[in-house]
Amino acid sequence: MGMRRRDFLLALAAVGGQQAAMAGMHALGFAPMTDSNGAQRLDLSPSTGAGQRVVVVGAGIAGLVAAYELSKAGFRVDVLEARDRTGGRNFTVRKGTVLGMNGSPDQQSAFDEGLYFNAGPARIPSTHVNLLGYCREFGVRMEVLVNASRSALCAAQDASLPRPVTLGQLENDARGYISGLLSKDIRRGALDEEFSAEDKEKLIHFLSEYGDLDPDGAYTGSSRSGYRRLPGAADDVGVANAPLDLHVFLDRNVWRPLVHEEVFDYQATMLEPVGGMDQIPRGFESRLPGVIRLGRVVSRIERTPDGVIVSHKSADAGEAEQIRADYAVVTTPLPVLARIPTNFDREFSEAIRSVTYDSACKVAWQSPRFWETQNHIYGGLSFVDTDLGVLWYPSGGLFDSNGVLVAGYNAGPQADRFGQLSRTAQLSASRETVERLHPGFSESLIRPVVICWQHVPFSQGAWANWKTPQSTAYKALNEPQGRVYLAGEHLSQMPGWQEGAVVSALRAVRLIADDATALQKKAATR
Amino acid sequence: MGMRRRDFLLALAAVGGQQAAMAGMHALGFAPMTDSNGAQRLDLSPSTGAGQRVVVVGAGIAGLVAAYELSKAGFRVDVLEARDRTGGRNFTVRKGTVLGMNGSPDQQSAFDEGLYFNAGPARIPSTHVNLLGYCREFGVRMEVLVNASRSALCAAQDASLPRPVTLGQLENDARGYISGLLSKDIRRGALDEEFSAEDKEKLIHFLSEYGDLDPDGAYTGSSRSGYRRLPGAADDVGVANAPLDLHVFLDRNVWRPLVHEEVFDYQATMLEPVGGMDQIPRGFESRLPGVIRLGRVVSRIERTPDGVIVSHKSADAGEAEQIRADYAVVTTPLPVLARIPTNFDREFSEAIRSVTYDSACKVAWQSPRFWETQNHIYGGLSFVDTDLGVLWYPSGGLFDSNGVLVAGYNAGPQADRFGQLSRTAQLSASRETVERLHPGFSESLIRPVVICWQHVPFSQGAWANWKTPQSTAYKALNEPQGRVYLAGEHLSQMPGWQEGAVVSALRAVRLIADDATALQKKAATR
Repeated sequence: MGMRRRDFLLALAAVGGQQAAMAGMHALGFAPMTDSNGAQRLDLSPSTGAGQRVVVVGAGIAGLVAAYELSKAGFRVDVLEARDRTGGRNFTVRKGTVLGMNGSPDQQSAFDEGLYFNAGPARIPSTHVNLLGYCREFGVRMEVLVNASRSALCAAQDASLPRPVTLGQLENDARGYISGLLSKDIRRGALDEEFSAEDKEKLIHFLSEYGDLDPDGAYTGSSRSGYRRLPGAADDVGVANAPLDLHVFLDRNVWRPLVHEEVFDYQATMLEPVGGMDQIPRGFESRLPGVIRLGRVVSRIERTPDGVIVSHKSADAGEAEQIRADYAVVTTPLPVLARIPTNFDREFSEAIRSVTYDSACKVAWQSPRFWETQNHIYGGLSFVDTDLGVLWYPSGGLFDSNGVLVAGYNAGPQADRFGQLSRTAQLSASRETVERLHPGFSESLIRPVVICWQHVPFSQGAWANWKTPQSTAYKALNEPQGRVYLAGEHLSQMPGWQEGAVVSALRAVRLIADDATALQKKAATR
Repeated sequence: MGMRRRDFLLALAAVGGQQAAMAGMHALGFAPMTDSNGAQRLDLSPSTGAGQRVVVVGAGIAGLVAAYELSKAGFRVDVLEARDRTGGRNFTVRKGTVLGMNGSPDQQSAFDEGLYFNAGPARIPSTHVNLLGYCREFGVRMEVLVNASRSALCAAQDASLPRPVTLGQLENDARGYISGLLSKDIRRGALDEEFSAEDKEKLIHFLSEYGDLDPDGAYTGSSRSGYRRLPGAADDVGVANAPLDLHVFLDRNVWRPLVHEEVFDYQATMLEPVGGMDQIPRGFESRLPGVIRLGRVVSRIERTPDGVIVSHKSADAGEAEQIRADYAVVTTPLPVLARIPTNFDREFSEAIRSVTYDSACKVAWQSPRFWETQNHIYGGLSFVDTDLGVLWYPSGGLFDSNGVLVAGYNAGPQADRFGQLSRTAQLSASRETVERLHPGFSESLIRPVVICWQHVPFSQGAWANWKTPQSTAYKALNEPQGRVYLAGEHLSQMPGWQEGAVVSALRAVRLIADDATALQKKAATR
């Protein structure tokens, strides 16, 4: 399920956990109406919220969606946002952007004009139809985000890889060996019980094409695995790569790239907004004039019998203000919400405190595009067995002289460790990882920016980690506290994805609309 | 080898042929100097061609490369081009473009402003470093060309596919079944001779991750194969697709998409010029002022003891002119060259006549982007078992209201048949194919353009087909006739690719430069 994807950035061994945790959650029985492409439909009348006021805590994606939809449905909406910008973890760093983290000095990006770095989410699956629906509605331009390039590299010392190899070679040697081994076994009689002689012949033929096997049905290398010297004119047939040793594939370090691109949410075609991910919150913002108050830190959330009182103050303290509203949608990440005083039920508060968030770090550099000119790499990720995890190349601005190289992007234990290093040590580790894959080119990296989401104020983590069985807490937090509704990626089947925040917010809006409609009817018949 | 790719568009059965034909061609022994990224280097002094004149026949990619490099090396160059434009088969159709074919009325494109259709080559592999080198040098902007999208579709009636399925499902069900079958055999003892018990355990673990197998090592479906209903908020886990029947994979109609994206020249990341493929010939053109003469049809090529005489006239007949030059580079497609009078050796002329060219057709329509809004398809190709072969979706202009859908693109026997249909029948067949994959949407297709390269004057085919053993002809045509050198995709290891034309032209330039240099030295020591 959607849950699975984060685990692959962490460690393959942990994959099963989240799925098991979520599998027991069919109980709430909730299937929203959808369009033919799977996008959810609210279909709320613009008078649904007449006379009703909602306070939305947080102007990340969940808060913005809730505010936008509730406004359209006639509610009076106020959004309180602690930061001086919208977007939450949707955060694009450009020249001049200041990035603050607890426990280390602020960084100010010195990227060249036109370069940018999506420090939070950076890719959108084509099936995230609700998020993409807003992009389409708001005129946010999209371009292809390359998530898998056959020219990208994998380095894994323990796998006895002689040097970094291309993902094209890994993929096609794996295909070839597996097809060849199965083909051999079939010819030895392995599937005699299951298949007719005719079907076995067809299966052998299929494996031969699928794995590019030799006439004897063995894998002995393939042009699909690339060339040491590219083909040319006349008789210059090039020199194909020799196949890797089969034993390379026994090492789990080489499994990661092979699985990565086939995880459902990572499959081609992925997308990104032209000009930076924050084009999305900007789209919402422009449709919510006067609704969003920036720099307002919520200091208390109090449910009342018929609504909610939210206290808030400016980031540099000052007098607290209060908003009394009929409903609240609270999108605050749980580690942050856990520290805000509330009068929630004890079990609910304990559920909030029980959820852990994963760490995640990214390091971004400005650099000449050596990966394009030297390695034929245009977008995609290279994989490496250091704590940095991956190098991530830009899919946009191809052929430009400079680009932003992410080196690297990690999560979980690797990010916990990385986040504890000094800035100097972090940058050294990043350079060393680049050197592993692109020897001699770490020197060209300049103007670094480091983000460790576990240290970012008002986030304190990258995404909810439901790996340990949390079904009780997850279920509890999806129920309202009186007229207070939580929403965010953490309360969806797509944790860590913006789409998860969208669908969770849509659900909160639907529940509030249902409640308000019921109250209106009750009042009318009284 | 590069040769293989075209065959996949035709029929998998034919794959072996071209490779076998080329394998015997190591004899000429020619390995040009390359840069660290594999691009060839000429390193010619600008005085190499001092006092020497070259006539280049044809302003397609091969002719333009030859003219550009020879000019830089100090040769006086004239290019004779029969059409009223440069580029040859590199041909972009826009609003107002006139497309003429033998035996049918001219078409004039009525596409909306901004839309275009690359009627010839439409994708550039990232490893085609020589072509991309010119793009970089000329400032031709590039964007990602999606060649494989997991949301794209496959329809194959004979494979008992119940409905069109996504390539994501085909790919991952195939991976799953093959991994599961091999895993089962290994646990039954199939590889006991080849692997230690420990390595067998690792291999089983690898297969489990690679194929997303269940705890028993069997393939019983995977979220990687997609969802009937997408996951949502709270307990809305979505509904995953059931796995396809294994027997689906016994039908060769479903092999094509599975192999397609792993053919070396089709691997991600592929590229295309922003604004149309003809940005490349335009780049050359702007660097060859006064060199190219359009609308000049060559009527005779005569080798002489110390050079060449090329006769040419305007397309609407008129008086022939002659150019006497020291060298000629003839890039004319062989079916066209076969009809130009020459005094070439009989064997050479017979070799020219012996080469057959493949047919290839494309049908392009303007349409609202229903594939994006309905099917989450952003670029890539869908596969279908009609003569139309594939639907090809635009990778650029995502989210625009309209786009150009290629429905479809075929080659070989399918294109032979398709090219013989009336225009009306061609368009009906195209609409029917769209209907197979996108029921109800063929109605939205407007303003069609059809190209059948076998009927295009001055091309008379799509690319040389070296499938039938032609090693004698191929070798002969790669040798000069006196001072006349042939060049083009047909004389490279990448037939049908622009890169093949580039490297073949570079080889001709190198041979001419060597000859001119040798003559200069001889003159100096005389």
